[in-house]
Order: sequence, then structure tokens, then C-alpha cells
Amino acid sequence: MAVRLEILARSSEHHARLGRIHTPHGTFDTPAFMPVATAAAMKGLTPAQVRSTGSQCILNNTLHCMLRPGTERIARFGSSHAFMRWDGPILTDSGGFQAFSLADLRTLDDDGVTFQSFVDGSRVRLTPEVSIRAQNEIGADIIMAFDDCPPAGPDVPASRVRQAMLRSVDWLARCKRAHGRPDAQALFGIVQGGTDLVLRRESAERTCAMELPGYAIGGVAVGESPERIAEIVRHTAPLLPDDRPRYLMGVGYPRDIAIAVAAGVDMFDCVLPTRNGRNALAFTRAGTLRLRNARFADDSEPIEAGCDCETCAGGFSRAYLRHLFQAGEMLGPTLVSLHNVRLYQRLMLDIRRAIGCNRWSSLAQAWPCLSAAPGETSGESE
Amino acid sequence: MAVRLEILARSSEHHARLGRIHTPHGTFDTPAFMPVATAAAMKGLTPAQVRSTGSQCILNNTLHCMLRPGTERIARFGSSHAFMRWDGPILTDSGGFQAFSLADLRTLDDDGVTFQSFVDGSRVRLTPEVSIRAQNEIGADIIMAFDDCPPAGPDVPASRVRQAMLRSVDWLARCKRAHGRPDAQALFGIVQGGTDLVLRRESAERTCAMELPGYAIGGVAVGESPERIAEIVRHTAPLLPDDRPRYLMGVGYPRDIAIAVAAGVDMFDCVLPTRNGRNALAFTRAGTLRLRNARFADDSEPIEAGCDCETCAGGFSRAYLRHLFQAGEMLGPTLVSLHNVRLYQRLMLDIRRAIGCNRWSSLAQAWPCLSAAPGETSGESE
Repeated sequence: MAVRLEILARSSEHHARLGRIHTPHGTFDTPAFMPVATAAAMKGLTPAQVRSTGSQCILNNTLHCMLRPGTERIARFGSSHAFMRWDGPILTDSGGFQAFSLADLRTLDDDGVTFQSFVDGSRVRLTPEVSIRAQNEIGADIIMAFDDCPPAGPDVPASRVRQAMLRSVDWLARCKRAHGRPDAQALFGIVQGGTDLVLRRESAERTCAMELPGYAIGGVAVGESPERIAEIVRHTAPLLPDDRPRYLMGVGYPRDIAIAVAAGVDMFDCVLPTRNGRNALAFTRAGTLRLRNARFADDSEPIEAGCDCETCAGGFSRAYLRHLFQAGEMLGPTLVSLHNVRLYQRLMLDIRRAIGCNRWSSLAQAWPCLSAAPGETSGESE
Repeated sequence: MAVRLEILARSSEHHARLGRIHTPHGTFDTPAFMPVATAAAMKGLTPAQVRSTGSQCILNNTLHCMLRPGTERIARFGSSHAFMRWDGPILTDSGGFQAFSLADLRTLDDDGVTFQSFVDGSRVRLTPEVSIRAQNEIGADIIMAFDDCPPAGPDVPASRVRQAMLRSVDWLARCKRAHGRPDAQALFGIVQGGTDLVLRRESAERTCAMELPGYAIGGVAVGESPERIAEIVRHTAPLLPDDRPRYLMGVGYPRDIAIAVAAGVDMFDCVLPTRNGRNALAFTRAGTLRLRNARFADDSEPIEAGCDCETCAGGFSRAYLRHLFQAGEMLGPTLVSLHNVRLYQRLMLDIRRAIGCNRWSSLAQAWPCLSAAPGETSGESE
């Protein structure tokens, strides 16, 4: 198998596990947060800056890479690692979620999805086989099954959710057959089923029967409440094999991550730290700061006192950061994204320490934001 | 005096000098190229990245800093060094050139200029006293006289050029009287006179009579041909005191810089490496590359083989850089600006070596772009 989970410690307080995942491009510590480098680039950050945040594994979005620069182009460079100059582990999504969420015009059938390219308006056909071939070309260490991912909400009929779940299982079998490089790239299955816990169980059973090197919980953070996400995760995570990585896709706020870790999830990705960073919203242990706010105009404090990120430790004040955003300077998005990604990685460091020491309560003390009211959900691409 | 030029060597081939300029925030080697951090920020580059290019002294634009964030705000942080976290030497322009070149609505009289803010449309009055107070608040190591800088060209009457020259001399005296911190900030005078060499001589005599710690050649790169710039510089530089820094404002292309160094100029600033970098135009020793060009789509070479910048040495290919610009990724402007500024600093390193070794001819061999057809002129702000 291309990747292997090594469990180093287990919490005695709940289901959290401390470990590391070995991949062809090195090892990353778990529970892990993976920032999103959508089109084979982290927005506003060089790979060296991403590395400086403590990030060990990053995510590329297959659909973006297909449309621009083209996955066959990336393949000519060997893989995304060589193309974007990131020598650590990379994970790619399947493109399915983005085809559903980004494309205005799309048609879905049992074979795949057809949609209009947001780059040039051309017609693009995505099937399990097309997605896997694209992911083989990108060459990430972990690749994801192409799944049918309907939105959540009361207006989505139960029959549609069940159809999507069964179709995803069917497509997973096709993905597995199409996967040309199982020794170099680990294919993860994705559990669907919406907010229906019975469907989630059936999906987990059918998905895990495929004997894959890792499993994801998909179809969350697509419109449900944070309480609903927590319920689904707490229900689904224990249904996945204990000895394989568990990945909660596209989640989320620090509080969502902490809850999922306690339920036994190992991997997370989210665009929040970078997308919010570009919009002058800074994360802190206590909550968020809107740096465009006039009250920061003469504030000489860093975003968060004691933070070891390049922005805070470098002495950049809230007043200066506000100025950069007011003046439309690119440096503002860069400096706040740097801080936000480091904040997430500091959270993951503290989570890993709390698991190792069986002191989960200390985590809540150091991170007041974990006790705050739940945040909104968030999608999985930039 | 706040700054002092130390001459370490002189070319036996022409008028070039090798030296260093001592300032309250450290020393920089001359001939020096100063990249432009317009609004107290280098576009797309952190101070650490700017430092990595070998840049030692940078420029802030006073007018931008006045309008946003406000120079009194910078003063509350001590100076621009503290505000933008650049601990090396800084130079500020007077704001005059920008008021003339950026503002649509302006009125000029013997006392100063009134124009409309490009930030909020408000009426702004700039006089020698206002400019110097603003520059005192920014706190740069070198500050510039507020001058009347008319455009060049056949449609500008000689009487207007003479008026501007005499007015600039009058304003220089007012700047000197208004300057509150001569021990901490060196006020440089600016020689005007357009393309009229007789006026240039008169301006140099009147300006140098003020006994200032340094002198600039202004009013070039405002529309003249490169040959005309060279003629003005060769005529004017020897008229300035040998023991003081000589600064050619807003110039320019590598070839323009090399010509001016040979005429005895010590300091340069220009937005070309960063502005062009943001627009996918990369400098090399041999010339420029338009990285959006389709011929780079699969080009695995760096911008320039052997370049030691973070972009080239980091292995980022022309194909990847092209992709970043095609996809609108901020990382493209950052990586190409990094390269371009480093390219300029490598040129200055080679220029300093060529002076020290009296081997100017070796410079032309290593830098084919210096023998190429002259480039266009360029303004002095981002």
C-alpha cells in the first residue's frame, strides 16, 4: 500500500489517535491539517512559506489542475511535487465535489457528470475513470474516489441521497479498477449518506468492503449545521477500520476539527485559513479579528501575542496589516494567510500533545475558540 | 550629516565610483539599486524576501504614505522602518513628482501644488514645508527636496522648464529651512532643467550652493529618449560634488543604469523589476521574457539558468510561472518580482566588481542586455 498509518498513542478520554502517515513523499503527523493549494499553488504563499507554518501535507484540487494547466502537463514534469516545488506529501480530491459546486451548467447520470469549464466554457466530461487518470497524472500520494455528492438540506429528497450513496459505491469500484498506480498512490474511499445515519452506516459498510488504504467522510460541510456535522462524524468515524487513516473532507473551523479528532478522525483540509486570510479575517486562539476594522488603525499589537508565525514574530502590527488591506497591497493576504495557516498548525500541535498526554481539557483552556459558538460550515476549495 | 559617502575605489576607465553610504540605519554599497516599496510595502514581497534579493536600501513614496496610512500614523510607530518592519536604510521621495504625474486635477503656483486625492477625492495641498514635515514623520534616512517637475517633450515651452528650475531652487531653500531633523535624515537637493544642458548647469550650481549631504538628478525618465537621458546624465553628474552621493531618480533599465554609473552616479531606484514582475515580464542578462507566452507552456527551464534567486534556485520552471499567471495566482507576481529584483541586484554586484577591478568590458560580456537597443523610460512610482 502506498500509505500506512502508524498509531503512536490513543486518548483514554475519547476516540482520538496520535500517529503519523507514511507516504512515498515522506511522513506527516496526525491528526493533520492540510492547507489547500487549489491550482497547484497556495494562494499568496511560496512553498517555503507554507513549510514555515509547519504544514506537512497539502491538497491540490484535481478539477482546477485539469482545466489549467492540464494534468497531462503536470505529468510531463513527473508530478505535482516537481511542478509546484513541494517535496512533501500531497493529496488530491476527485474533482467531483467541485464539478457539483462550481459549475452552473451540469448534467449528471450513472456514468458521470458533464459540465461547462469555468476557464473557457468548453464541455468537460468527468467520470470515475477520467478522474482517476487525472489524479494519476497529478501524482499525489493520496487520491480520492470520484463520488456523487448532493447538497444537504430539507429540499433534497431522501431518494436522491440514497441514489448518490449507491452511485458513489458503484463509482468507487470503477475508480479502484481504473487506478493504475496503487503502489505509488493510495486511493481513499468516501463514505456518503448525507445526514441520514442509517444511510451513513450502509455506505460505510459498502465502502470499507473495498479494502482500501484509507477512508474519508464526505458530503459534510455542504450546508448542514455544525451540530449535524458533529453528529454525522461521531456516528461514522467508528464505522471505519481502526488501522486506516480517517479523513474528514473540507472541515472546517477549529471547533469542528477538535470535535472530529475526539471522534477518531486523523486528517482535515479546509480553505478557511487562506481564504479568510485573503479577506483580512485573522484567526486567534480566542476567535477571529476583522483586520479592516477601524479600531485596529493604530494598534501596535501583533495579530496574537506570543504567536510564532512569521507575521506575528516578525513584528507586523495590526495597524500595518490593516493598512495593507486598505491600500490593496498583496502583502496583506500573504501575511495574514501565513498567520492563519500557522494558527491551524499550532492547533494541530496542541491537539497532538493533548492526545499524547491525555489532557484534552488543557486544549480547551488554551483555545477559547473551541468553546465558542459553532462557526459556519465551509466548502473544500479555494 | 545624517549620511556619508565613503569612496572605496574609482574606475580608471571612466567616472564610476565604488563605495558605500553610511546612514542611521546601516550602510549600503554603491552603486546601489533601491527597489520601490510605494505605500510602505513592497508589492507581493515580505521584507525578508526583499532582503533575500540583496537589496540594502529601499524607497517609500511620500504621497502614497500621506494619503494612506497617513504619515502621522507612521510617526506614531517611530518611523517607516518600524511600521513596515524594514530595519535597513530607507529613502523617501518628496511627493512632488507623484502629485504631478498621478493627479488629474491639480493647480500649481509659486507656493506649491493642490490636487485631488486618488484615495478619497479630497483636496490635498502640497508645499515644500508640507512635504518635509511628512518626510520627517516617515523618518527615512534620506529625504528629497520638493521640486517642480514638468514633463519633457517638444510641447513644453522653454520658459516653463526655466520657471520650474528656478522654482525648484526656491523650494529647496524652503525645504532646508523646514527640515527639522538634519542629524537623523539627510536632505538631498534635486537638479532640474529638463533637456536644456545650460539650464542643467545653472540648476546644478544653484542647488549645490545649498551645501547638502547629497544630490539627485531629477526630471529625467519623464518622457525623453534613452539617448537624451544619457546625454543629460553625462553632462550633469560631473557638476555635482565628488564627495557626495549622486542619485539618478526613477531610472531605469539595466542599460540606463550602467551608462549612469559610468558617468559617476551612485544611486538608482525604479519600479521596473516589481511592476514588470507583476505582469509576467522577467528580466534576464540577455533581455526580457514574456512568461505568458504559449512557448513557455512546457518549458522546464528556470527564468535564467544559474540565477541564484529564490525562484530560479528554487527550481520553479517557466512553465509553472506561466501557469500561475494564466490562473491568476498571486504567487506568480511574487516569484517573478523576486527574480527581477535579484537580477537588478546581481547587475549592481557585477557593476561594483567591474569598477573595483577596472574591468568594465567584462560587464558587457556577462550582460548582453547592456548592449541591446535602449529600453523605454519609466516613471518612479508603482
